[in-house]
Amino acid sequence: MKTLDSHLGGAWIPGDGPAITLVNPATEEPVALAHGRNLDLGGALAFARDRGGPALRALTFAERGALCAALAKAMHGAREELIALAVANGGNTRGDAKFDIDGAAGTLAYYGELGAKLGDARLLRDGDAAQIGRTARLVGQHVWAPRPGVAVLINAFNFPAWGLAEKLACALLAGMPVLCKPATATALVTHRLVEVWAEAGLLPPGALQLLVGPAGDLVDHLRAADVLAFTGSSDTARSLRAHPRVVAESVRLNVEADSLNAAVLAPDVDLGSEAGQLFVADVVRDMTQKTGQKCTAIRRVLVPAARAADVVDAIRERLAGIVVGDPAHDEVRMGPVATAQQATDVRAGIARLAAATKEAFGGAGEVTPVGVPAGKGYFVGPVLRLTDDPRGCEPMHAHEVFGPVSTIGSYDGEPQTAAALVALGHGGLVASCYSDDRDWLNRFVVDAAGWNGRIYIGSEKIASMSPGPGTALPQLQHGGPGRAGDGAELGGARGLALYMQRVALQGDASLLKALVGGG
Amino acid sequence: MKTLDSHLGGAWIPGDGPAITLVNPATEEPVALAHGRNLDLGGALAFARDRGGPALRALTFAERGALCAALAKAMHGAREELIALAVANGGNTRGDAKFDIDGAAGTLAYYGELGAKLGDARLLRDGDAAQIGRTARLVGQHVWAPRPGVAVLINAFNFPAWGLAEKLACALLAGMPVLCKPATATALVTHRLVEVWAEAGLLPPGALQLLVGPAGDLVDHLRAADVLAFTGSSDTARSLRAHPRVVAESVRLNVEADSLNAAVLAPDVDLGSEAGQLFVADVVRDMTQKTGQKCTAIRRVLVPAARAADVVDAIRERLAGIVVGDPAHDEVRMGPVATAQQATDVRAGIARLAAATKEAFGGAGEVTPVGVPAGKGYFVGPVLRLTDDPRGCEPMHAHEVFGPVSTIGSYDGEPQTAAALVALGHGGLVASCYSDDRDWLNRFVVDAAGWNGRIYIGSEKIASMSPGPGTALPQLQHGGPGRAGDGAELGGARGLALYMQRVALQGDASLLKALVGGG
Repeated sequence: MKTLDSHLGGAWIPGDGPAITLVNPATEEPVALAHGRNLDLGGALAFARDRGGPALRALTFAERGALCAALAKAMHGAREELIALAVANGGNTRGDAKFDIDGAAGTLAYYGELGAKLGDARLLRDGDAAQIGRTARLVGQHVWAPRPGVAVLINAFNFPAWGLAEKLACALLAGMPVLCKPATATALVTHRLVEVWAEAGLLPPGALQLLVGPAGDLVDHLRAADVLAFTGSSDTARSLRAHPRVVAESVRLNVEADSLNAAVLAPDVDLGSEAGQLFVADVVRDMTQKTGQKCTAIRRVLVPAARAADVVDAIRERLAGIVVGDPAHDEVRMGPVATAQQATDVRAGIARLAAATKEAFGGAGEVTPVGVPAGKGYFVGPVLRLTDDPRGCEPMHAHEVFGPVSTIGSYDGEPQTAAALVALGHGGLVASCYSDDRDWLNRFVVDAAGWNGRIYIGSEKIASMSPGPGTALPQLQHGGPGRAGDGAELGGARGLALYMQRVALQGDASLLKALVGGG
Repeated sequence: MKTLDSHLGGAWIPGDGPAITLVNPATEEPVALAHGRNLDLGGALAFARDRGGPALRALTFAERGALCAALAKAMHGAREELIALAVANGGNTRGDAKFDIDGAAGTLAYYGELGAKLGDARLLRDGDAAQIGRTARLVGQHVWAPRPGVAVLINAFNFPAWGLAEKLACALLAGMPVLCKPATATALVTHRLVEVWAEAGLLPPGALQLLVGPAGDLVDHLRAADVLAFTGSSDTARSLRAHPRVVAESVRLNVEADSLNAAVLAPDVDLGSEAGQLFVADVVRDMTQKTGQKCTAIRRVLVPAARAADVVDAIRERLAGIVVGDPAHDEVRMGPVATAQQATDVRAGIARLAAATKEAFGGAGEVTPVGVPAGKGYFVGPVLRLTDDPRGCEPMHAHEVFGPVSTIGSYDGEPQTAAALVALGHGGLVASCYSDDRDWLNRFVVDAAGWNGRIYIGSEKIASMSPGPGTALPQLQHGGPGRAGDGAELGGARGLALYMQRVALQGDASLLKALVGGG
């Protein structure tokens, strides 16, 4: 069986300590081993700072963009292999795996193109020069400069390719070297990806390192100019936020954590309309794609009371057609959750919801999976719950169930009511609303905006080409306030900000013009 | 004697508990009392969220800007009174007091004008719409929306007017209600300012509240959508960062803390030239203005080894002319530090530097102040230290001495050497460099940019109109990485970001255009 080494200090290093076994979550068969303890992580960070950082900072944006483009291109040849690993180690259907892997390549390619657009500069202009003296001779000009540290990327189990790529693309283009740590349980895809890139020799030494296994004392070695970009649970986020080293050194921390994303149906939308069909399709896709294990997935569904029964029927009908089982089988539409612990947590979450809601579909998630030895695999079937008192339904807004589970709550159809219910989630990555009524939308968006990182507006005109609210596009900010961690990633050039320092340059106008142009 | 009440929940509230006595730091005579314990701070925050927030969010940017402009205007009538209070309670010379008070009014006026420019919108556009679908019909548009919480502004003792105004202007224009807590020792100016504004009835109820005295359980009541904007010591910043409530709720925290700002003289600059004279004047101004109690003040001075003796002579000559004493006396150019504790801390800092550097001026800060009863007042005279091994001089880079104290270090004249020495400060609010050599400047700026929030370039062409590096202009970002807290304030419209949530709106292009235009 393959052992997943770490790639640190320019070499593949096995680490030691007891082996962690990575399994196929559909069959519980082992697929790889990881050791990864007692590694010299302080040395790895120093290697990034001393070798990778200077090498990347010496490049222009265009040259760094070319690195991102090359990483994307190198994925093409390994695509089928990566898909197979995602199916075997992630419980992904082929569609889920493509979503992750093509999402990763697309994001890297996007930042490759952005780099080309930013051209041969090393400082990124932020706005125009502002006169600050008596005459136009004395001006201020803001620019972004690479942070002279290392970017540590800690990713979640659900997107071993995309989760890395979205952070990596921004860090590299910004000019920061990276040390990435995937979730151990699903590290097979990340490991192979880094291996493919290392074999191709695309990046300067120290620009990308990989830690497989526990984080050990990694955070203890961080310094003032470093960045810690974390995607994962609120609990881990809290421990990182309060980590003595992060606190003492003002290490820049970006968190993308749990959130209870809401989808809101407005009263003007008929379920049979294009917007209505889009709404139902989006809810069902978010419940079942990646077995509901997307940080952006719809967890709360708000519908006008008069439509609640019809919505339940429409969603129920589609969920009933979802074949659950080993995703290695072609007919399977939804695989298991990624780990035994996830299955336990999801079942506990369903129980919490069950105590406060009515059943609409799927009971407690019991399911007989296709193509799986009896009793094996971390399977939970799709579960839909229902309440006619969403304001009083605390579990609906307070606990993210990270699986194929959503709750429908009925409301009075007023945009203010909907926005207030959305706000009960205490901050989300994305809220979606479905309406063709501009006045309704205007009132909803203004009230809901402060609580969300993204608002997706489903309407008739865009129904045929919509990616749904669950897809994190490189052009749009990914991250939200409060419970979602108050972070921000992606969003085009905005995504570079995490890995750069904004500096106000203040001086003679002609001199600054020459400087910022690199002259 | 006046007792400083808090203004909470729409009323002046005395609080209880033992009185804290505010004194004149030049004479140690009492000037006011503060109680301020056992106040209902949870209730005050709720008042802001329930009353102030909705009232401000209902206004357009132009209307909120008009509030800022009105606050600035209301300061004119109270200007002389505020100056007198700053002299009596802050140890400020008249010049120091004007710097604080006119800086406050100017910043409020600036954001008033910015509000007028942003016009009648309630959402602030961030960049242009980006096509995200197969056709131009589906787009993403980023906007900024007010955070639906309360902004808690905790300010330092050195700028009781300006420190409040720079945060207040941004929060109000962004649409967030404010609860401010000045440092108790110098709260007299802040208290009178809020009183003047309250008497004029300029703001909606709940838009601005004042807490005089200890913070008590204030932070325990913060929530996800709130903002905590802090200026002060690194130690307090650390305790706020790790505060369980801040951690648990992802309360957005902005820190502007200590930093060891550097001024670098390049080898091309002759001390007799305009740039050379500017350099000497900036160092002396930063050492003595506000008795060196500016977070932006120059603490480290780097000069080419061949010029070190001349620079010491030039600075020493000017420092020798500074009359220290009770700032109520006209001839006094520098007052005491603000508190007995500050005097103790500054003396300890001088002792740390003295162990690792040579004396250049002022000994250990002993001084016989003018117009002060013998043995009274928190006086420290200007102190200049010198080292020819700045790389090996740890105290020079590791401890901010918050008083009239700077250290000169000689270096080899290379921009890379200077930038590496600047970096030893582990992150600063501002670095300044003095040169007319574009190649030297280019290399210095590129290397130093990632470690600083602002870089001031002193050159011949701007010497006659320069405000010096120590002035935080509303147009330019204020805040820096690492030791400086990794925060950002001001910078024109950039300063609103702390108090707003960026949201990516995703949908039909014509619909978004109508929404963002407010239609």
